Amino acid sequence: MKYSELSKEDLLKEFKNQEHKLAEFKAENLKLDLSRGKPSEEQLKLSLGLLDAVNSKSNTKYDNINCLNYGGLDGLSQMKQIFADMLNTSADNIFAGGNSSLTIMFMVLNNLLINGTHGCKPWGEVKDRKFLCPVPGYDRHFQMTEHFGFKLIPVKMNSDGPDMDEIEELIKNDESVKGVWCVPKYQNPTGIIFSDEVVERFSKLKPKAKDFRIFWDNAYCLHNFNGNDKDIPDIISLCKENGNEDMVYEFCSTSKITFPGAGVAALATGKNNLQEFKTYIKYATIGPDKINQLRHINYFKDINGVRAQMKKHAAILKEKFNAVYDILNSELKDCGIADWTDVEGGYFISFNVTGCSAKELVGLCKDMGVVFTPAGATYPYGIDPTDSNIRLAPSFATKEDIKTSVSLLCAAAKYLSLKKLLNK
Amino acid sequence: MKYSELSKEDLLKEFKNQEHKLAEFKAENLKLDLSRGKPSEEQLKLSLGLLDAVNSKSNTKYDNINCLNYGGLDGLSQMKQIFADMLNTSADNIFAGGNSSLTIMFMVLNNLLINGTHGCKPWGEVKDRKFLCPVPGYDRHFQMTEHFGFKLIPVKMNSDGPDMDEIEELIKNDESVKGVWCVPKYQNPTGIIFSDEVVERFSKLKPKAKDFRIFWDNAYCLHNFNGNDKDIPDIISLCKENGNEDMVYEFCSTSKITFPGAGVAALATGKNNLQEFKTYIKYATIGPDKINQLRHINYFKDINGVRAQMKKHAAILKEKFNAVYDILNSELKDCGIADWTDVEGGYFISFNVTGCSAKELVGLCKDMGVVFTPAGATYPYGIDPTDSNIRLAPSFATKEDIKTSVSLLCAAAKYLSLKKLLNK
Repeated sequence: MKYSELSKEDLLKEFKNQEHKLAEFKAENLKLDLSRGKPSEEQLKLSLGLLDAVNSKSNTKYDNINCLNYGGLDGLSQMKQIFADMLNTSADNIFAGGNSSLTIMFMVLNNLLINGTHGCKPWGEVKDRKFLCPVPGYDRHFQMTEHFGFKLIPVKMNSDGPDMDEIEELIKNDESVKGVWCVPKYQNPTGIIFSDEVVERFSKLKPKAKDFRIFWDNAYCLHNFNGNDKDIPDIISLCKENGNEDMVYEFCSTSKITFPGAGVAALATGKNNLQEFKTYIKYATIGPDKINQLRHINYFKDINGVRAQMKKHAAILKEKFNAVYDILNSELKDCGIADWTDVEGGYFISFNVTGCSAKELVGLCKDMGVVFTPAGATYPYGIDPTDSNIRLAPSFATKEDIKTSVSLLCAAAKYLSLKKLLNK
Repeated sequence: MKYSELSKEDLLKEFKNQEHKLAEFKAENLKLDLSRGKPSEEQLKLSLGLLDAVNSKSNTKYDNINCLNYGGLDGLSQMKQIFADMLNTSADNIFAGGNSSLTIMFMVLNNLLINGTHGCKPWGEVKDRKFLCPVPGYDRHFQMTEHFGFKLIPVKMNSDGPDMDEIEELIKNDESVKGVWCVPKYQNPTGIIFSDEVVERFSKLKPKAKDFRIFWDNAYCLHNFNGNDKDIPDIISLCKENGNEDMVYEFCSTSKITFPGAGVAALATGKNNLQEFKTYIKYATIGPDKINQLRHINYFKDINGVRAQMKKHAAILKEKFNAVYDILNSELKDCGIADWTDVEGGYFISFNVTGCSAKELVGLCKDMGVVFTPAGATYPYGIDPTDSNIRLAPSFATKEDIKTSVSLLCAAAKYLSLKKLLNK
């Protein structure tokens, strides 16, 4: 029953009840963490074979070079093909790099900041430069553009992607709006998938700034865990069809396929952008770790190997997400103090508490020994105007720990909401 | 006998002689390359065991983290220790990163360009910013600072390091001089070692710019091949002693110890710089490839493992350098048309032709099928004012190919010099 409909007496009873529950949690001296989207130990074990995929007896020649030596600025051909198949694009559009897609994003931004693109003024010289940030979103994206001196403009996320009316309006007349962050599949943290219509509207944008760019972080492109994966349209070819060939930079990596930190990352973009990026990046590197690319090639062979691997990840993740939903549904469904996204892939659930302050809630949980992503982290400058959003990241913890953590979250949310209702 | 002392008749005879030699080379349809400082296949084989140093059965936990997962922004503790021992500095000064020291240099420069350091104006806002480039030097260094908008100021290299009188003069009153490139041991391309006095004078510099920085690329710190390695003083502690703790950024890597492109690179610098760099780099990465660091740790254990490996490299390189010197000495020693540096480590010999144009010489060799580093590449903007310097890089080629290539170089140098003397 909804809290707002309870009598004062029942509210008080329920408050005592939750207070008691919290005391019990407190006595357990918990030390749990549901804060970051890290694969679990069990998931890491899935890819241990990768560590054997190149050894001292292996053939290290590939693409007519010895991968042990210098060279190969944009990566090995089959690594590009695997990324192309992951993103439904052409291998001609791919730059296969080092271990971090975040680094590639940083370098792309940095190039535009310092050198500009297509003859436009370098972004670093645009005094009131702005970047659009669909919210809630990924803290590291927002922090990167903040670091590069952009004013961050929040844009509403709908259940089918960012509010395109708002984006179209924001970019129409303002030449200082230079880009937008997107995680099109299983968005961080809402877990939603951009609809075909949203993707198409992105590709048809008519920004005032000729150098407006979509930063399309397809980090979870194959990360469905419910067995009903749905491809989104290829933004690169759509952009090209609509005369916007150079408007999008797409990113992905194997960080959550093989190993975070020891995977391979990629950039996918149009011909001109790719050439421009290679011209720039050659000042910073002679080439990526081709041996690690060769490991991935030997291990997966092709996209089918990757897809098979993702099924194993899915089985592990599905159980953990279900554990979260079981508790949320049984504890909070009828209280009217919170809602959350129902996701089929990715690493996050977006939890919105309406009955109390998210900051207070995360703080209380922390005091009780359970760390959640800081409230506000999913918003530019760490400021959630409604102080309601909390990102749940259940991948790393065990199922038991997830149950405990989310149970605590529910009890604490109830406790704080009841306290508020009771004006305590 | 010196060409300048020969009679016209003898010159003509010698000219015909060399013309004939070149015709013979031409008939061989050579396709050889002595242009870049790449380790040879034989050297790469020395480190194949590294590829087995982490496998699917290995313990991947280190420093209380699983190296397979995210985290560890500044690298693994023992990797830092190994780099510290390589550079005779403390592990507290080390950031152990990804596969490329060039990338770390780029990122350090980029941070200073965008954010500035120690409260000084970002270098990107210093309109007439300048960088000192001891010449001849490393093309990729020069190109990087050119790309970042610096005016490159050449500084004379002496046999004991850069001309310190010149450097002291250049930085004394000009606040726009922001840095200097150095390769202190077995400098690229001269192969010389900075003397203790030069290192000390660097540490005592009194630049007008408070944010003047020494970029100390110690790429060849352990790369002696004559069995008589000589340590240079630790620039970091010397700078600290002289009140210049933050004046130097030192770089090195295992690219020419294990595998180029699949090694580990490091930054060594003072406490403040290191903290500043970590604060910056966290926008670009969650952490380096720790598994590859673990491979290096397991493979080498400690600095002794690295030193043992370097002895094996030395044996291979020594033979190749001797092959160059044998030909140069027998062919050119008495002609008075060229001189060259006598090196005991590193990857290069600096060859100066005085009897003809270096550009023409490299061009003629290329026409005959042998590629040398382009003339001028060792100078800022690719312009060697005396058109005399050519970098010889004998590491990659076989001994036979080195003999052929250098013999051709000698014949071509003689041919062109004689042509000039004969006014042909």
